[in-house]
Amino acid sequence: MTNRVTSLFNIKYPIIQAGMIWTAGWRLASAVSNAGGLGLIGSGSMYPEILREHIRKCQQATTHPFGVNIPLIYPAIDKHIQVVIEEGVKIVFSSAGNPKTWTPVLKQHGIMVVHVVPGSKYALKAEDAGCDAVVAEGFEAGGHNGREETTTMCLVPSVCDAVKIPVLAAGGITGGRAMMAAFALGAEGVQIGSRFAASLESSSHVHFKQAIVDAKEGDTILTLKQLIPVRMFKNKFFGEIQEAEKRCADKEELQILLGRGRAKKGIFEGNMDEGELEIGQASALIHDIKPAAKILQDIWEEFRGLQKETAGWAL
Amino acid sequence: MTNRVTSLFNIKYPIIQAGMIWTAGWRLASAVSNAGGLGLIGSGSMYPEILREHIRKCQQATTHPFGVNIPLIYPAIDKHIQVVIEEGVKIVFSSAGNPKTWTPVLKQHGIMVVHVVPGSKYALKAEDAGCDAVVAEGFEAGGHNGREETTTMCLVPSVCDAVKIPVLAAGGITGGRAMMAAFALGAEGVQIGSRFAASLESSSHVHFKQAIVDAKEGDTILTLKQLIPVRMFKNKFFGEIQEAEKRCADKEELQILLGRGRAKKGIFEGNMDEGELEIGQASALIHDIKPAAKILQDIWEEFRGLQKETAGWAL
Repeated sequence: MTNRVTSLFNIKYPIIQAGMIWTAGWRLASAVSNAGGLGLIGSGSMYPEILREHIRKCQQATTHPFGVNIPLIYPAIDKHIQVVIEEGVKIVFSSAGNPKTWTPVLKQHGIMVVHVVPGSKYALKAEDAGCDAVVAEGFEAGGHNGREETTTMCLVPSVCDAVKIPVLAAGGITGGRAMMAAFALGAEGVQIGSRFAASLESSSHVHFKQAIVDAKEGDTILTLKQLIPVRMFKNKFFGEIQEAEKRCADKEELQILLGRGRAKKGIFEGNMDEGELEIGQASALIHDIKPAAKILQDIWEEFRGLQKETAGWAL
Repeated sequence: MTNRVTSLFNIKYPIIQAGMIWTAGWRLASAVSNAGGLGLIGSGSMYPEILREHIRKCQQATTHPFGVNIPLIYPAIDKHIQVVIEEGVKIVFSSAGNPKTWTPVLKQHGIMVVHVVPGSKYALKAEDAGCDAVVAEGFEAGGHNGREETTTMCLVPSVCDAVKIPVLAAGGITGGRAMMAAFALGAEGVQIGSRFAASLESSSHVHFKQAIVDAKEGDTILTLKQLIPVRMFKNKFFGEIQEAEKRCADKEELQILLGRGRAKKGIFEGNMDEGELEIGQASALIHDIKPAAKILQDIWEEFRGLQKETAGWAL
């Protein structure tokens, strides 16, 4: 398959592995890129020198294109930008912030920029800022999420109607069925998180991976809406948030309850009670831990099978 | 196109118009059925004798199959059941309640029963109760909604994996793109609400129809979660709910604030400030008020066009 997304990134399959914190290091990114998708290093949980190390290891592990996800609200954002420029990274996915500030800087250095958006008005801003593509990420996606709560089903057609640059769909996509659905809605590629979090090469803790495999419908929730909304597993920590909200805790109190380092504690260290376990609704559709290459292959085969099936429907 | 849904209901297109309160009377239902879809009368806002009148008028207006939606939490539910049996209704869509109580009664009278569910465990219960099909309704749908907040993208594959009976997708579907997406996810038909609410034949107030046309992303919200969660427009009444929730109002206080008759006030009488304006997220994708037959035709043509396009993708 050749489309604007495969051409833009020079990849075989229009499937991007999301740059998840504490999960997407050089091992996962290079495994996905070697298998024909686009792997992303998740820099949101890395100090600049750790990011540099991951980029270098990824360059050694694959000759295929890969990228780095940079949350624009990261405190040391200028250092991260400096590292990706210095290390010759060719593709940056930016998220959680205004694309106007850094897109021109990155573009000046010949870096492709894709911005993650939760709404079409943000997609238009990204297009105006010079981004090469956008990721339209729905309410069902794991981690930080938009306030309008627009789901992938409603968001993707809306964003596709709004912008001319290619649109990648994210949120709720674990297999070929959802990938075909995203393409029907107008996307030309997909960004997949949770499914790759439960891969062999993901650096998240095995307890976290097992929780994804065990997850049922309704096990995740978009919470902490007074701060930055985040989708995560309903664990003991979520119970504490609920208690606090029940007694009408204010922003400051919730910030203290959240504290620091909870995502690391949960995702990386495997503390399933106290951690902030960022994951998507689609975890309910994931039933095994597999190598990243097998994940890609299974998605592609299901997608291809569906394409054939669709072509065969009598009208 | 022939599949289990078109065969089950004996209809031309696997497109069902949702039985929305204050919106789906005999005019809308018969218009949809005459155009080749399945029209549903929304009995949730009707007294039993009004329902009887709508059924009789619908029978006069179309020779094609049509059905009645019955919310099982309706106080005079036994009278509604009696009316549909007496009037020879052939298809009932039940929602909001336990399908075990009434499904066997309806089936005994040769009536087909389809139950609306927000999760796969409820779909299994409906299958066990003898239902002929289920509607998997996602978080983005308008009106009353499930507590697990599972979106159409995640819900439909999950329900399709869980049950053997046909699955209809609902929530976020206004056109052929989303219909194709629903089919890719495994659905064999779609139930469409908001798009038909903004039809000429819908009995909702013109102010309400115009609000759908004017709606943008983020204009609806799932609220009143302490009572029964409902998706509606963010209007003045929603501002009052927010105020109440901010001061930690309890269930009783919210119930008093909600009061009685707010859905009628908004949807039927056009009071856009004080009404409970039940509508889906997909309202942001609706830009005109059209005859129901034209809506059906446009969805079908877009769906058919996409099928051809999909078949043509190079692999």
